[in-house]
Amino acid sequence: MEIQNINVSSYPNSKKIYVEGKLHPIRVAMREITQYPTVTIENGERIETPNAPVTVYDTSGPFTDPEIEIDINRGLPRIREEWIEKRDDTEVLNDITSEYGKARRDDHSLDPIRFPINHKPRRAKDGHNVTQMHYARKGIITPEMEYVAIRENLDNEKRGIKSHITPELVREEIAAGRAIIAANINHPEAEPMIIGKAFSVKLNTNIGNSALSSGISEEVEKAVWSCYWGGDTLMDLSTGNNIHETREWIIRNCPVPVGTVPIYQALEKVNGDVRKLTWEIYRDTLIEQCEQGVDYFTIHAGVLREHADLVENRLTGCVSRGGSIMVQWCVEHDQESFLFTHFEEICEILNKYDVAVSLGDGMRPGSTHDANDRAQFLELEVLGKLTETAWRHDVQVIIEGPGHVPMHKIKENMEKQVSACHEAPFYTLGPLTTDIAPGYDHITSAIGAAIISNLGTAMICYVTPKEHLSLPDLADVREGVIAYKIAAHAADLAKGFPGANVRDDALSKARYEFRWKDQFNLSLDPEKAKRYYLESRRNAPDADDRFCTMCGPNFCAMRISQNIAESCRQK
Amino acid sequence: MEIQNINVSSYPNSKKIYVEGKLHPIRVAMREITQYPTVTIENGERIETPNAPVTVYDTSGPFTDPEIEIDINRGLPRIREEWIEKRDDTEVLNDITSEYGKARRDDHSLDPIRFPINHKPRRAKDGHNVTQMHYARKGIITPEMEYVAIRENLDNEKRGIKSHITPELVREEIAAGRAIIAANINHPEAEPMIIGKAFSVKLNTNIGNSALSSGISEEVEKAVWSCYWGGDTLMDLSTGNNIHETREWIIRNCPVPVGTVPIYQALEKVNGDVRKLTWEIYRDTLIEQCEQGVDYFTIHAGVLREHADLVENRLTGCVSRGGSIMVQWCVEHDQESFLFTHFEEICEILNKYDVAVSLGDGMRPGSTHDANDRAQFLELEVLGKLTETAWRHDVQVIIEGPGHVPMHKIKENMEKQVSACHEAPFYTLGPLTTDIAPGYDHITSAIGAAIISNLGTAMICYVTPKEHLSLPDLADVREGVIAYKIAAHAADLAKGFPGANVRDDALSKARYEFRWKDQFNLSLDPEKAKRYYLESRRNAPDADDRFCTMCGPNFCAMRISQNIAESCRQK
Repeated sequence: MEIQNINVSSYPNSKKIYVEGKLHPIRVAMREITQYPTVTIENGERIETPNAPVTVYDTSGPFTDPEIEIDINRGLPRIREEWIEKRDDTEVLNDITSEYGKARRDDHSLDPIRFPINHKPRRAKDGHNVTQMHYARKGIITPEMEYVAIRENLDNEKRGIKSHITPELVREEIAAGRAIIAANINHPEAEPMIIGKAFSVKLNTNIGNSALSSGISEEVEKAVWSCYWGGDTLMDLSTGNNIHETREWIIRNCPVPVGTVPIYQALEKVNGDVRKLTWEIYRDTLIEQCEQGVDYFTIHAGVLREHADLVENRLTGCVSRGGSIMVQWCVEHDQESFLFTHFEEICEILNKYDVAVSLGDGMRPGSTHDANDRAQFLELEVLGKLTETAWRHDVQVIIEGPGHVPMHKIKENMEKQVSACHEAPFYTLGPLTTDIAPGYDHITSAIGAAIISNLGTAMICYVTPKEHLSLPDLADVREGVIAYKIAAHAADLAKGFPGANVRDDALSKARYEFRWKDQFNLSLDPEKAKRYYLESRRNAPDADDRFCTMCGPNFCAMRISQNIAESCRQK
Repeated sequence: MEIQNINVSSYPNSKKIYVEGKLHPIRVAMREITQYPTVTIENGERIETPNAPVTVYDTSGPFTDPEIEIDINRGLPRIREEWIEKRDDTEVLNDITSEYGKARRDDHSLDPIRFPINHKPRRAKDGHNVTQMHYARKGIITPEMEYVAIRENLDNEKRGIKSHITPELVREEIAAGRAIIAANINHPEAEPMIIGKAFSVKLNTNIGNSALSSGISEEVEKAVWSCYWGGDTLMDLSTGNNIHETREWIIRNCPVPVGTVPIYQALEKVNGDVRKLTWEIYRDTLIEQCEQGVDYFTIHAGVLREHADLVENRLTGCVSRGGSIMVQWCVEHDQESFLFTHFEEICEILNKYDVAVSLGDGMRPGSTHDANDRAQFLELEVLGKLTETAWRHDVQVIIEGPGHVPMHKIKENMEKQVSACHEAPFYTLGPLTTDIAPGYDHITSAIGAAIISNLGTAMICYVTPKEHLSLPDLADVREGVIAYKIAAHAADLAKGFPGANVRDDALSKARYEFRWKDQFNLSLDPEKAKRYYLESRRNAPDADDRFCTMCGPNFCAMRISQNIAESCRQK
């Protein structure tokens, strides 16, 4: 199989820049947007005053660097390989070690859809722990830590903006469990990024085929597309065919951390029959995925046997796929969940590859009606205990959260998470603040996501307009990502994140000065902004007019305002 | 001119119902959505349990009542005419009294575009004051007051939901200035609605042509369309040709209150030359519009001469059209604003027709950078004084607010308004919580609108995706209205508004029970929800499947959850 290269156009008036590390030989990728000068007429003379370029956080990876040749069939450059090797605490295995991985490898009927290059897996040497938390607790500032410190700051130093973010702060936050860098040693293609409330709010996107839809090439395209628009991490939630092979293509081409929910694939392996699920199958799935390079696993280990009864009074029962599978397993077997009973063992696997745990919220509410109920809060207590366990093994942890929460219950939800889970980063899906708008749930949930991020949630999982109705296509992914970039950025502004206002202020200034092109280029979606503008100005496209169709020339407040200022100046 | 009747399809599975008044012979329109029964199989037997219909607030007026024949060229039924007549404090004038209105009437070149029916204007008899506030303060519960009390409550009584909203509460809130019913005696076609923080959050939509776009028929279509999707009030911001005639068509066909910004038309009358604006031209414009039936006027009377300097330190100066016009007028004439100096006289005109004042925020911030600055807060103080003046004349008042405010400054903005303006209802545009997403400002601002509504804002002015870029078309109006319905409703839920959760819970239950059609029908946009669903199920359209394409049959949490519940029940 050959996948066609995916075309994402480069961002307009932008160039990829790299900022070099001071502690490590690293190059941190960013995007610099150049601006046109401000033009004024003074005493009949045209004066151009330059506007400084604006540096923005860039999740698109090498896809938007014209200097790097992209070949989907070879995968992205493995930028972290050298850093990992240098630590000298890992070894390249001769062979993959999961039974399932081997079986897939030996099945030659899969050759046509296999990723062409076979990278051997890497694992911690015996007796070693290779997680970023482990290093952080030992006082080591890794290249990954310096990378994210530089990345978070953008051009703050150049602008003289004071920032609390230093490589040492990154280390401290990771050591304390308040932040994570999800960076499997088998996914060296990913550019390090950090999730934690001291840092800019991140957004996760979900892709993945279901039994009813889409193939490998479409999923890889969605992954690249999601990064292009601003997705910080990517969850592959595939439940259909060829999950293993699809994942390989995605990881090899993904510049951001990739997450999965291993129970989905484990269930596929037993043909969807929950009764046949076993710890052994699950364990083999973990190893299979660790060796492919998955950066974080959603594990619903907080769903206990006793929780089956708790959802009885709910309007919408249990709406977590993983959660409902585990409840069913517990009920069918009349046993405690193997994810819970084997959690220590899971941690011992994960810290050999540095895979982070995203503790799944199997009891999250599926409607505003069920928000903040006993089922959810009891599970949070269990997640708090599991966090302690994971931290004992230096495994990095984030906590998944709802879902559906009306606005007046969001604060309580956040506070409960912080106290129950010892400040481990919160990672919420929305939450949706009302249930009456299917088809618009990117909006019902962007409201909740902005509010909860402002209260301290570190990462928000996007919701597309198709939520509850069908799987998103490329257009939906774009809508969902932008809605969530808005929520995340609105929270960064509200939190006073260092430099967060630079892009807002630059765009506002461009708007006020009728620098239309800069207004488009500085926006989250330059193509759409420009298209909307041009649609209304078909007669004079591309003109840098001092008004727009909204008010017309006589009623443009900004023009009048400037005229007043000018006439005041001339008096 | 004949305008084709505008087709808005009736809402699916819905019927128009009318609830009768107890104090007055009134019929309050609502929409009732019927639901399918819940189907369960018990002991092999199919059991159908009915689901009660859901009553929702309906802004669409007679357009969705099949019993009423709609003819755009005749206008809507004049439901309030009898109520007004009965009060016996108004008289029908033999002729319109504005100079401009007469000139337009006598200009026969306008005959082809004129609304075909000529309703004579009504005005308070000498010595009478006909505002709802006037009646309220006298202890009178008008039919309008009873109408809105019933309308706010929907079917709460039938459901046994306790509600604080009674006709007497409505009267008290209006008497205290905390709520308004904008209901010009010359717009008897409108169904009464209330704006105030004790009531459900309302949303305003803006339509209107500019010098560069659209004609009468398009504007009427947008007005009807906006009401169909849920707009509670409608501002006609036209600034192009034939404003007078366009407005007549809109008002005669508009089932919700109509607002304008009279200074726009006044400026058109002097060909856009601010220097030529006079109090006399403005006054004549007010009377012209009062007699047509405009229900509320935005008046930027709080913009003072001294404010010209205040915007100097701003990033985006003055972005209010009306505000910038008045600042320019003050600067050019070196005089105080005639809107301010003649405000008492304005109130004396308005209380003869019961037109409410929406005190314009000429100094609202045009960027997150300029939020909550001195210019805005000083103007709020002036608006507070003007509110006192208006209330002395029993003129109903709402206060306009920003605009652009980052999340952490929203609360301060709201609190400042409440204290400066004595709890007069706040009516905000958004606010946008970030400036980096032109093309998506319905989302950047829905976040702010939801938050500020929850804090007590009574009405939010919608923003469409085209904001800052171009005038909205029908599709944009729909997107903007739905985004704001979401914000308003999320706030109602958070405020614990009586019965607000009924629709959410019904939709959630339908979702959980795989009653797909009910899920669509109960949603804010049934057509879109259904379309998204069907696009993914082209092979089995219309099927009431117990899963969707998102997760496929094996991974449907809700199905698993129900299976567990069933198997528990059978044990």
